[in-house]
Amino acid sequence: MLKPSVFKECLTNPSFSIYGGVSGLYDYGPPGTALTNNIVDIWRKHFVLKENMLEVDGTMLTPYEVLKTSGHVDRFSDWCTKDPKSGEIFRADHLVEEVLEARLKGDKEARGVKVQEEESEGQSKKKKKVKNVAAVKLDDAVVQEYEEILAKIDNYGGEELGLLMKKYDIRNPSTGGELLPPVAFNLMFSTSIGPSSNLPGFLRPETAQAHFVNFAKLLEFNQQSMPFASATVGKSFRNEISPRAGLLRVREFLMGEIEHFVDPEGGKKHPRFDEVRDVELELLNREVQLAGKTHVETTPIGKAVDSGLVDNETLGYFLARIQLFLLRIGVDKSKIRFRQHMANEMAHYAADCWDAELLTSYGWIECVGCADRSAYDLTVHMKKTGAPLLVREPRKEPLKIEEWQVDIDKKKFGPKFKKDGKTVEAAIEALTQDMREKLSLDLQNEGKIVIDVPGVGDGKVEVPKELIAIEKRTRIENTREYTPNVIEPSFGIGRIMYALCEHNYWTREGDEARGVLSFPPPVAPTKVLIVPLSSHSDFKPFVRILSDKLQEIGVSSRVDDSGASIGKRYSRNDELGTPLGITIDFQSVQDNTFTLRDRDTTKQVRAGLDEICKAISSLVNGTESWQDVQARLPAFEGQEVDKE
Amino acid sequence: MLKPSVFKECLTNPSFSIYGGVSGLYDYGPPGTALTNNIVDIWRKHFVLKENMLEVDGTMLTPYEVLKTSGHVDRFSDWCTKDPKSGEIFRADHLVEEVLEARLKGDKEARGVKVQEEESEGQSKKKKKVKNVAAVKLDDAVVQEYEEILAKIDNYGGEELGLLMKKYDIRNPSTGGELLPPVAFNLMFSTSIGPSSNLPGFLRPETAQAHFVNFAKLLEFNQQSMPFASATVGKSFRNEISPRAGLLRVREFLMGEIEHFVDPEGGKKHPRFDEVRDVELELLNREVQLAGKTHVETTPIGKAVDSGLVDNETLGYFLARIQLFLLRIGVDKSKIRFRQHMANEMAHYAADCWDAELLTSYGWIECVGCADRSAYDLTVHMKKTGAPLLVREPRKEPLKIEEWQVDIDKKKFGPKFKKDGKTVEAAIEALTQDMREKLSLDLQNEGKIVIDVPGVGDGKVEVPKELIAIEKRTRIENTREYTPNVIEPSFGIGRIMYALCEHNYWTREGDEARGVLSFPPPVAPTKVLIVPLSSHSDFKPFVRILSDKLQEIGVSSRVDDSGASIGKRYSRNDELGTPLGITIDFQSVQDNTFTLRDRDTTKQVRAGLDEICKAISSLVNGTESWQDVQARLPAFEGQEVDKE
Repeated sequence: MLKPSVFKECLTNPSFSIYGGVSGLYDYGPPGTALTNNIVDIWRKHFVLKENMLEVDGTMLTPYEVLKTSGHVDRFSDWCTKDPKSGEIFRADHLVEEVLEARLKGDKEARGVKVQEEESEGQSKKKKKVKNVAAVKLDDAVVQEYEEILAKIDNYGGEELGLLMKKYDIRNPSTGGELLPPVAFNLMFSTSIGPSSNLPGFLRPETAQAHFVNFAKLLEFNQQSMPFASATVGKSFRNEISPRAGLLRVREFLMGEIEHFVDPEGGKKHPRFDEVRDVELELLNREVQLAGKTHVETTPIGKAVDSGLVDNETLGYFLARIQLFLLRIGVDKSKIRFRQHMANEMAHYAADCWDAELLTSYGWIECVGCADRSAYDLTVHMKKTGAPLLVREPRKEPLKIEEWQVDIDKKKFGPKFKKDGKTVEAAIEALTQDMREKLSLDLQNEGKIVIDVPGVGDGKVEVPKELIAIEKRTRIENTREYTPNVIEPSFGIGRIMYALCEHNYWTREGDEARGVLSFPPPVAPTKVLIVPLSSHSDFKPFVRILSDKLQEIGVSSRVDDSGASIGKRYSRNDELGTPLGITIDFQSVQDNTFTLRDRDTTKQVRAGLDEICKAISSLVNGTESWQDVQARLPAFEGQEVDKE
Repeated sequence: MLKPSVFKECLTNPSFSIYGGVSGLYDYGPPGTALTNNIVDIWRKHFVLKENMLEVDGTMLTPYEVLKTSGHVDRFSDWCTKDPKSGEIFRADHLVEEVLEARLKGDKEARGVKVQEEESEGQSKKKKKVKNVAAVKLDDAVVQEYEEILAKIDNYGGEELGLLMKKYDIRNPSTGGELLPPVAFNLMFSTSIGPSSNLPGFLRPETAQAHFVNFAKLLEFNQQSMPFASATVGKSFRNEISPRAGLLRVREFLMGEIEHFVDPEGGKKHPRFDEVRDVELELLNREVQLAGKTHVETTPIGKAVDSGLVDNETLGYFLARIQLFLLRIGVDKSKIRFRQHMANEMAHYAADCWDAELLTSYGWIECVGCADRSAYDLTVHMKKTGAPLLVREPRKEPLKIEEWQVDIDKKKFGPKFKKDGKTVEAAIEALTQDMREKLSLDLQNEGKIVIDVPGVGDGKVEVPKELIAIEKRTRIENTREYTPNVIEPSFGIGRIMYALCEHNYWTREGDEARGVLSFPPPVAPTKVLIVPLSSHSDFKPFVRILSDKLQEIGVSSRVDDSGASIGKRYSRNDELGTPLGITIDFQSVQDNTFTLRDRDTTKQVRAGLDEICKAISSLVNGTESWQDVQARLPAFEGQEVDKE
């Protein structure tokens, strides 16, 4: 657990707190902002640069029609339930979850079972609304029912939640008041664009739509070459019903999103899959969850794809790459798992979805989603707008298609059917191959065909052979057209940052008050703390020289020339995760050497300015470790105490 | 001028164009996004890293009350005028400007004056609404009136604009219909936060408010040390009445904003002012504009501050640093000027303001604002919330204050005045020093005082000397409290990017079709183009080696292995501003050497992989120029043509 003082005051804090705050909105302070920027920077190197992804930046303001087509207007909602007396509104699934968890806890107390540390860690922070539940023993069968419901809580729709609420008598926890049946609440923030208020719009709920509506331009920019990926880093918005769990459920959040466009034929292979085949992931599959369980299996991604557990290579490639990214920024490997979505849990556009979940003091938290959106989005936008959101490629071998073709004698067709001509023609064009084959026989045998044309005459139309021919012919197709499928890894940067802080926080042995945030140097908000031994004026020019020099090599530093002891000043910055410290002491003034201190080991080396800067540069770029530097440069055994 | 094909299709394009687009919203394509990211990266190094600014990230969603206090709800608006018949809405100042400019142009035509190239360049793109104005000669006096109005067009309020519209008979340009008097239209997008719709909010119109409401936390993080600056890079929103001029007036835009907090006493000195004292700026001051003129004076910033033209060192320091930044990213020095705001033009919070304007084909465009917001924001938020948004510092010398103090005998005061006691007491506390001095004499001479207390009795209240004493005493103040002033440089990143593109675009001599965007390498969207001579399979492994190697050293590259000629492939990427190209030819296959080509000169050198990568790295980091590289490595004289 993080000490609240560090995390709350410096990394982030509730927005507009002097105005009483707004739930679900958080501001990032200087260390939080720097940490975020560094995570994004590494994200860009790991994904965008590595695979020459096309990074794009769409607007957050999105017109109604786009999100109507994408399905968000109708389906991007949570179920909420209202207490008609108090006016309070609850998110229905969260309420059911909290009430059942509380009752299970009460049951354990009644049975005299000590609640396991691990469990309470995962649940302790959630229980905002449900407090002080009486220790009431439940039937064994009821306990099992509750546990099974909780394991698939994300799988219930509104009606099912309503039935659960009735069956288990779930009420407003603070007043005991009855609740109305759940209704859908759309999670998008709405606004209107322009002065006349006639163009309704929303703040985007995801960055993805900009990729889809611009697909034709992106494909052109990529010189018609497939597969390729686009990427976006940007804010999205969800008007959460009742934000809880601090940073983990917020109304405005930074995402990194990748849309990888792939040919749906040929099994969605990925050219670099061999590079990750042996990466082992902890997988929690759909069937296990539906059986009311949560155990995971360690599986190499190659094996998971081969067995069909993970649907295809591209999806598998990204699951592995997501894990490699999380490890690169310093996430604890033992606190990562990949959980497959259950059918009803998936977003409306998804064909399959796995979440990378990270274990925090709030339990397992979804930090990265990796969905196979199939051809859903491109298809609906193309259908709505007529824009060619597809790939056309020359076939290596021209495709020969044997088919029944219909020829109409248009000169005779018009005079015969008059105003119904177009309708009859359209009905003929729409005939299936099977029907055409059958009708060609009719034409041969009876000299006419009879077809269904609703709305013309009595719905049956006779066409004589003078007006029509039906023949089997061979058509050559040189171009193939297809709508690409999309694999979408989607990163919640704020959640990742939060988990990263928890995973990297520890306290010095024997001193609970001395916390350390052991971020890897490339991720750390500030890289170097500059500490003059005292406020002695001899040290001042060295402070300036050091900060200017570090700034030149692009390394962020902070000076602490306060009156506090050296030890205290280092402690303060250990808590902010600053990996390196330079002390300026009286020897510095004499021989221009400085000590360089490592945050995690508190070991120090001593060297001249250039050597120190070289070491800092390679530590910050990740090309050297502290052990390498310690092996190269002479150790300094001075104490972390004041001396003058 | 940029070729539309390059700029429109790749850098940016209207958002949601397959849905018909939304005016004022633009998406950034891959080169536009990379260019923006690089500008932001350099901005961070130039400002944030250089001065250890505290970078913060606030939310865009902002509750009503915060923006009510800041003055934006009441005053962040433009004047719009409506045609009641057609329903069209115009921005009043733009309409007046466009109509008068069109009439002046018509006048020139009537006089047979050829319209100057420079003028038409500056005005050509604005005239969307006013077209085909007849060549009508105007009176000389009218011409002068029009020109004076245009020079101070930004200085008019709604009433004045209404009078101008009446006086000069300005109507709906497309229908000739009469227009209603201008009314204020608030430019913020509104929404509501939470499920019960009872918390109204806006999308932020600037990033600044998050700095102000968090001031106490920032000061604490900075260990109470002044001066300091905070900074934010993020999107803001303005619901423009009728967006025009493409990228230059948009509804959603990326800003870089700095809030430099400074002690208002002591002339707002800046510790690094000496570093920029000699930087020469082109200054267009307020008086020149109010006289209806636009000429600028080249002035070293030191001199401008000394003479009082620029109010103080901190403001001057940032004006110089803004220019240095613009030059660093490649803006044309001859197309920068700094224009001082006129009194009515300034935002409601500003005490003084200078804009860095860049010359584009749309004329001079405000790209950076540099405002002295004085203590406005911190004062209003502190007054509203009671939060201590101020600096407390120990005085070096305790301050001795001689003052008239009032003592009230509370035991007798209550019984005498009963329910009016508090009111009378407050009136006494509020007495000025001068009044207290006068009343102390009354007390001595008459044994009582008479003071005004509105609402108590007849408004006059008599207080006998038994209840009150007034004495001159000395008070010692050890702590000084003050509200810092704020200097705010505010960068419109999209506008800067647009101007940068125009300034860097040129065409090869003798070939209008071969455009080049000469971005400095650190700014360029993609750094290296990799060009295999042909699709020969021998080249393929080298393509992979080169892109992997470049990726390792953090350099973005793009492969063009299309069938087009080498020359054509280079041309295509010259237009996207890619500064370097590597050709893989048959010699590469034999001896592992490659040619490296410079975009601007089209000169080439030839060397082995490591040498090539080293040169690329130093060019991209800006530590070497092409001339340096050319001097080091052997020239390659091959032609930019295909050979096999």
